[in-house]
Amino acid sequence: MTVEPGPLLAAINSPDDLKKLAPEQLVQLSDELREFIVHTVSIYGGHFGASLGVVELSVALHYVFNTPYDQLVWDVGHQAYGHKILTGRRDRFPTNRRYGGMSGFPKMSESPYDAFGVGHSSTSIGAALGMAVASDYKKEFDRQHIAVIGDGAMTAGMSFEALNQAGALNNNMIVVLNDNCMSIDPNVGALKEYLTDITTSRTYNKVRDELWNVLGKLSKFGPNPQQIARKVEAAMKATLMKQSNLFEALNFRYFGPVDGHDVQHLVAVLNDLKAIPGPKLLHCVTVKGKGYALAEKDQTLWHAPGLFDKITGEIFTKIPDKPQPPKYQDVFGHTLLELAEANDKIMGVTPAMPSGSSLNIMMAAMPTRAFDVGIAEQHAVTFSAGLATQGLVPFCNIYSSFMQRGYDQVIHDVALQNLHVVFCLDRAGFAGADGPTHHGCYDLAFMRCVPNLVVAAPMNEQELRNLMYTAQLPENAGPFSIRYPRGEGVMPEWRTALQRVAVGTGRVVHEGEAGGVAILTIGHIGNYAVKAAAALAAEGLDVGHYDLRFCKPLDEEMLLAVARRYRAIVTVEDGCLPGGFGSAVLEFLADNGQHLPLRRLGIPDRVVEHGTQDQLYKECGFDAAGIAQAVRELAATVPVMAREKLLR
Amino acid sequence: MTVEPGPLLAAINSPDDLKKLAPEQLVQLSDELREFIVHTVSIYGGHFGASLGVVELSVALHYVFNTPYDQLVWDVGHQAYGHKILTGRRDRFPTNRRYGGMSGFPKMSESPYDAFGVGHSSTSIGAALGMAVASDYKKEFDRQHIAVIGDGAMTAGMSFEALNQAGALNNNMIVVLNDNCMSIDPNVGALKEYLTDITTSRTYNKVRDELWNVLGKLSKFGPNPQQIARKVEAAMKATLMKQSNLFEALNFRYFGPVDGHDVQHLVAVLNDLKAIPGPKLLHCVTVKGKGYALAEKDQTLWHAPGLFDKITGEIFTKIPDKPQPPKYQDVFGHTLLELAEANDKIMGVTPAMPSGSSLNIMMAAMPTRAFDVGIAEQHAVTFSAGLATQGLVPFCNIYSSFMQRGYDQVIHDVALQNLHVVFCLDRAGFAGADGPTHHGCYDLAFMRCVPNLVVAAPMNEQELRNLMYTAQLPENAGPFSIRYPRGEGVMPEWRTALQRVAVGTGRVVHEGEAGGVAILTIGHIGNYAVKAAAALAAEGLDVGHYDLRFCKPLDEEMLLAVARRYRAIVTVEDGCLPGGFGSAVLEFLADNGQHLPLRRLGIPDRVVEHGTQDQLYKECGFDAAGIAQAVRELAATVPVMAREKLLR
Repeated sequence: MTVEPGPLLAAINSPDDLKKLAPEQLVQLSDELREFIVHTVSIYGGHFGASLGVVELSVALHYVFNTPYDQLVWDVGHQAYGHKILTGRRDRFPTNRRYGGMSGFPKMSESPYDAFGVGHSSTSIGAALGMAVASDYKKEFDRQHIAVIGDGAMTAGMSFEALNQAGALNNNMIVVLNDNCMSIDPNVGALKEYLTDITTSRTYNKVRDELWNVLGKLSKFGPNPQQIARKVEAAMKATLMKQSNLFEALNFRYFGPVDGHDVQHLVAVLNDLKAIPGPKLLHCVTVKGKGYALAEKDQTLWHAPGLFDKITGEIFTKIPDKPQPPKYQDVFGHTLLELAEANDKIMGVTPAMPSGSSLNIMMAAMPTRAFDVGIAEQHAVTFSAGLATQGLVPFCNIYSSFMQRGYDQVIHDVALQNLHVVFCLDRAGFAGADGPTHHGCYDLAFMRCVPNLVVAAPMNEQELRNLMYTAQLPENAGPFSIRYPRGEGVMPEWRTALQRVAVGTGRVVHEGEAGGVAILTIGHIGNYAVKAAAALAAEGLDVGHYDLRFCKPLDEEMLLAVARRYRAIVTVEDGCLPGGFGSAVLEFLADNGQHLPLRRLGIPDRVVEHGTQDQLYKECGFDAAGIAQAVRELAATVPVMAREKLLR
Repeated sequence: MTVEPGPLLAAINSPDDLKKLAPEQLVQLSDELREFIVHTVSIYGGHFGASLGVVELSVALHYVFNTPYDQLVWDVGHQAYGHKILTGRRDRFPTNRRYGGMSGFPKMSESPYDAFGVGHSSTSIGAALGMAVASDYKKEFDRQHIAVIGDGAMTAGMSFEALNQAGALNNNMIVVLNDNCMSIDPNVGALKEYLTDITTSRTYNKVRDELWNVLGKLSKFGPNPQQIARKVEAAMKATLMKQSNLFEALNFRYFGPVDGHDVQHLVAVLNDLKAIPGPKLLHCVTVKGKGYALAEKDQTLWHAPGLFDKITGEIFTKIPDKPQPPKYQDVFGHTLLELAEANDKIMGVTPAMPSGSSLNIMMAAMPTRAFDVGIAEQHAVTFSAGLATQGLVPFCNIYSSFMQRGYDQVIHDVALQNLHVVFCLDRAGFAGADGPTHHGCYDLAFMRCVPNLVVAAPMNEQELRNLMYTAQLPENAGPFSIRYPRGEGVMPEWRTALQRVAVGTGRVVHEGEAGGVAILTIGHIGNYAVKAAAALAAEGLDVGHYDLRFCKPLDEEMLLAVARRYRAIVTVEDGCLPGGFGSAVLEFLADNGQHLPLRRLGIPDRVVEHGTQDQLYKECGFDAAGIAQAVRELAATVPVMAREKLLR
């Protein structure tokens, strides 16, 4: 199914074509671009609201600036669809986020117009500053550097770190603050309130009211103090607004707020800004989902709605013919509330992912006990540590790849002090269509090297519930992490009774033939090993399968028993091979003088692109077929009698 | 040698004793406390300037607040000596930073007065906020939560993240901004300029000047417009100062600036603040090194001067009787300049450690090419990535344990985009007296799991120079990391000619007897293996020694040759055992069907406290004696002929 672009958009194959239009045509072009995004996403899927919110901004930026010589960095990047369509990728747009297709985020290897690869938030100002400093060093003084960043992304610390340096330099830097009061969920925090304050001029109004009030009391001094006040007011306004501004405090020149949907005004303003040297911030007020009424109304739902009927707004959901397993996210959300109802020490913390993580369930039911701290993973962890010092048990839910941002805090603030914080690492393993920036590849490796941490991963919903239950018990009053993937589990009947799990114990999924091959798995990927084992059983190969459940501490008794019983081992993990679960098993075996052939399956040591999780498992050889094949190869190459030879 | 405290200080064994003093006695107490710190540090060593700067603040805080019920969090913590002395640790103070002695930082396990363990900067606001939220939840509404943070630490993003959440809540939070314009080096960035601006009232003066100017032009409106202006000015001042303030923008009530050395005024102000609900910031201006003239004058030198004569100010340095090896830091600093002189693409980046890392050498010689970005590791990495997109080659120098803070940026902004950034990880391995917060234990594990990264470590100065030279070559235009320890190397004649190293190749230090034991090392710790091998040789054990030089990629040819030649392997690394170098060797051997007994030496999976590096190597069994012992044990337990049995 082809989506036909409107007549103006159809003629735009690069920003050069865009620049041939008259300013007054930009309104129509913006409408066509918006319609093209709505239509394409409705059929092919993808992020939605964010790109609709910056249609006019995308048009205006490429119209005014000399991209790609001028460097345009989109923060996060899921709002960059318009940018991609205008920069030669209109016809590839239907492949967006598909295996082998275009990335859902700007990506340097995809286009010279993508000045910086993004995905995680709040990198744009720092990256653009690096570019600006490089341009100065190369004496390219005419070159512009633009970071487009949402008000949500602005709350992350690294944005502030970058503003702090940029404000002390004097480079050609334009920060476009795309203020829509939303991340995926509504934004939170003092900065958001401040921006609303500026936008509604409350600050200025307060000062003016005060001035009028004072001058009213001074009426004895002249014939018409109010007249004086009006003059004073006008003259002071510029100074006052300038001085009262957070960004001005950091030595950025502040402009705005402007209407981010008035494309002609944006063009005029951006043209003005181009001529002003030094660091500048343009405050644009936009509406996420702009131009699509339903998306404007429910911005969280329409952040990435899936496929839908663009006329009726009906979001297509598959109607299952039998009960389906829930998402791990939902199991987390409901189970946390259940646990919190029974244990008044439990608190919930999320850095700006209440709906994505399902912490919103607890936030709705217990608003004083569950916190969205904004896009601020570092703070989420240290805030949790602070709660834990007071005897509370925070469940801090952070996506695996975002946990990379709170890593120092995990070590320094939680693990070294052995505080009782439970980390729930959502989206662990391949994230799917979001691609490499969002894959949770590294957490098993980077968490298991930290002392005091328990590193666990459930194979199914019941295990997730039991691990969560276990993690909050006083007997486990130290750092405890639980990782689980994006998406569905395997148990339609998932509301099982909560059971304590002894830390460091695995589960025998199936005891295989002695002298054969054993599969050791950690987490949800174990279900693929179950399929592999079934296929092998049909071939007459009775392989053992052990769900280790804990990457740290390992079930040493189980591992020794496995080493005694089998002649070779395959480990499987939805995580990076260097330093991960398989590596932990190798360490244990070596430390205990066990010399068994061992084949490690998992995410290879290279960048794996986007695709469905199943496509990526297959590509990396640890889908069910890949696991079965690895077992077959080991069974074929390790002689049955060889094992005794290997033993001392 | 005992340091006698003054009469008031001698009577203070806890803040309860302090509270018995009259306010006017606090000046004398402060003097005695300062003298006690100067005297003790001059004899026993430790951090210096920071604690002198907050003597009055320490006294005032414990005088006014009900610690430890009221919770006092010191940011970074090397300024907390006064706090420690006032809270029952006066007599233990001479053991400060010594093996088995008191920690140089606040530490929860050391005292209930240490509300939160610190070491890395900028955690205090988030941790105190967690405590404040917990107090509210527990209905302890009278409880106060105070974060004392320097203006340097305030630039790190996580401070801002915490302010952003705190400003939107309404807890009892007092942030005391200890503004001394210094970290270890002078602070940088827009925030510093802004604080100076407030302190010197420039902002307010500008507004006032404008007002007078306007009213002057309005003289026709009344008999004495200047008189009106004076009234208006007074009335507006409060509003204006409030509105024009960065912290007020984030919904903190701003108080100050106040003189941080006027203890009685501090007591009065803090008493006032106690009664005001919600988030507050008190801006204290202090002088680092206050009260010790030399330290006030050269604040970087006197941050931690070592031992000195407190009267003359002479800093004792051992006078060596022969040329000594330089510090790795200095080799880095001089070599970087040398490389940058030859390659105009090289840039230097440090997050607030110009003197500690010796990047100050390049900063002085090439001010447009070397940048101190402030305490902002995340930004340092992404800024470097931005530079690299423009074909420049940034050397981004970050201490190993601080690299934990830029971890996501290493993965997301550098490695996934395969950008040519050279990370120099200083203070890798045991940091020594700074203790667990500063030990660089985890970097080998957390760096080697990241795709595209080269992970190298030099065994000596020449190797460091060669690796730095190699890292900047166009043939290695991807992420490249080089780790090295704090302190001296081994080569007095270190200015060797620069030589290219083939990436992924190790060095044969000594080929040992075939069928014997091989030691594989990475980095400086290899020099201890040299000593071990010499000791073993004296016993008739001819062990092989291989300096792998690269933890990733491994020298596969060398490892296969080692596996063929020897019957057992010992790996040694100054890094954590889980997932580290030894683990990488195990992975390679397993992947290649080599089943050799292998013993891994390195930092165990627990928190190792402070001490000298040698004390800690010994404690953890990888000093020369420990290495030799491990080899002896392996040689004794692995039968000479067993190796063939182990091979398939």
